Amino acid sequence: MIDAQAVFSAVSAAEAVERTRTAFLRHHAGEWVMPAKTYVDAPPHGDFRAMPARGGGVAILKWVTSFPGNPSRGLPVVAGALLVSSAETGELLAILDCGAVTSLRTGAAAAVSAQALARDDAASVGLIGCGVNGGWAARCLAAVGYSEGVCADPRPESADALATELGWRTGTREEAAAQDVVVAVTPGHEPVILVSDLRPGQHLAVLGADAHGKAEVELDAIVRCRLFCDEWEQASKGGELSTGVSAGAIERSQVTDLGAVLAGDAPGRTSAEEITLFDSTGLAIQDLGIALAVLEATPNVPR
Amino acid sequence: MIDAQAVFSAVSAAEAVERTRTAFLRHHAGEWVMPAKTYVDAPPHGDFRAMPARGGGVAILKWVTSFPGNPSRGLPVVAGALLVSSAETGELLAILDCGAVTSLRTGAAAAVSAQALARDDAASVGLIGCGVNGGWAARCLAAVGYSEGVCADPRPESADALATELGWRTGTREEAAAQDVVVAVTPGHEPVILVSDLRPGQHLAVLGADAHGKAEVELDAIVRCRLFCDEWEQASKGGELSTGVSAGAIERSQVTDLGAVLAGDAPGRTSAEEITLFDSTGLAIQDLGIALAVLEATPNVPR
Repeated sequence: MIDAQAVFSAVSAAEAVERTRTAFLRHHAGEWVMPAKTYVDAPPHGDFRAMPARGGGVAILKWVTSFPGNPSRGLPVVAGALLVSSAETGELLAILDCGAVTSLRTGAAAAVSAQALARDDAASVGLIGCGVNGGWAARCLAAVGYSEGVCADPRPESADALATELGWRTGTREEAAAQDVVVAVTPGHEPVILVSDLRPGQHLAVLGADAHGKAEVELDAIVRCRLFCDEWEQASKGGELSTGVSAGAIERSQVTDLGAVLAGDAPGRTSAEEITLFDSTGLAIQDLGIALAVLEATPNVPR
Repeated sequence: MIDAQAVFSAVSAAEAVERTRTAFLRHHAGEWVMPAKTYVDAPPHGDFRAMPARGGGVAILKWVTSFPGNPSRGLPVVAGALLVSSAETGELLAILDCGAVTSLRTGAAAAVSAQALARDDAASVGLIGCGVNGGWAARCLAAVGYSEGVCADPRPESADALATELGWRTGTREEAAAQDVVVAVTPGHEPVILVSDLRPGQHLAVLGADAHGKAEVELDAIVRCRLFCDEWEQASKGGELSTGVSAGAIERSQVTDLGAVLAGDAPGRTSAEEITLFDSTGLAIQDLGIALAVLEATPNVPR
């Protein structure tokens, strides 16, 4: 059993970004495989997700909650465990804290997308939603060189703490949405990036909407962006893009998988003016990438 | 963490049968829910399965291997873990040994099917395949009153040990296949119940074929039986019946879910002469039933 503290000790934000990029590349190359995640509803509290993947000599299964109302009960939104088994012997090798892995890979995806899709002169980050995963998105972006940022959150203490930690500042939602790279990590019950917020050349990374019916960006704003996602199958069914896909406003041909951009198999940003939008729904191969890093850094885990 | 010994101490064979019957009934009533299981291939060794379910106030996820060649390497075919989380709080409550739970619920399903579908005067069991799960099928059938049995296995020591334990006897495959209730628990690479084995009034419980392409009964024999399964969606895709379904020889209307029979919503056996066949593919709701029994019997597990 490897707890949250051990996971964070084993994998820095910068390392999480590298591992996450590797995960997208391995998956794009077909070396790492990942069946679709399965949802188990647990009304009225939320749902559980079972997320398997295989690669790098192991097979993993993440069993994780999304219980959005839990913080008001003093409980975490994200809880569960990540099982790591040998793909050679089938033996269970380790059980990792699931919240820590999820935070690292979720935050890292925002940074990987910004490195690939933001303008070269992008300098500032606006973070909308400074909860646990928002915090790690900010840490990962800071780790890859974004030294300026605006933290916005209805809970001022969350925004304050994060801004202080990173040497960023706090601001309104509108201020955050005006930065070069805008990252949204909210529950997705209502849009937090509006058409009126859009500025030429921005990169948007939207991480919060992880199930059908959730959205952080107005549909009118989405269709004005060049669209990218972590994986089309998952994103079209249960992410930021899924409402537009259901409505017929977004088609497969308009959306590029991030792995294809990273591998050089598809274009990323094609002009300084266009607005890029990356829909992150969270992939099991990202968890796999972090899990491998944890195992490599942990003594006495058989491989 | 609750290990195999603790699982077997907490749940007797007779208790496993009752819990498994309850699981089929709750699932049939729609109270317990279960998305389809997900397979992760791990060539050339086998595969991993992720099996979630929810009911009785908890959500479970079983992460389990089927690595058929493992015994030749001194490793178990079935390994992994079963995670139990609160459906109220999302909190991870317990991690159970996965092989023990699998053995109990797999064996118990054979006994539940025999109680529901065998003739009232059925007295003897023939067991083809005396491995770990075969052994538990025999124990569960013995626990519900089958005092005579024939154990057949290419490995005579496995058949001997089980026959001695239960006061049954050893015999050939043909002898086992001639009994009132015939239970097959083999890897499913070749048929072990042939057309020439069939006798009027038998009940067949076939437990071994748990993935597409595996079969323990000749297709010509299957189509002479009245057919039952644990769940159509899973059985039609990856069980004993799936080859016949693919070939168009078996249709949905010919196959009855066991839960419907147990609930009195569908007929079971309709004559003393017909041969009933129960295709068990292994359901996550069965694992849930056993997990709840383990939790109730284990001190200091929060609920």
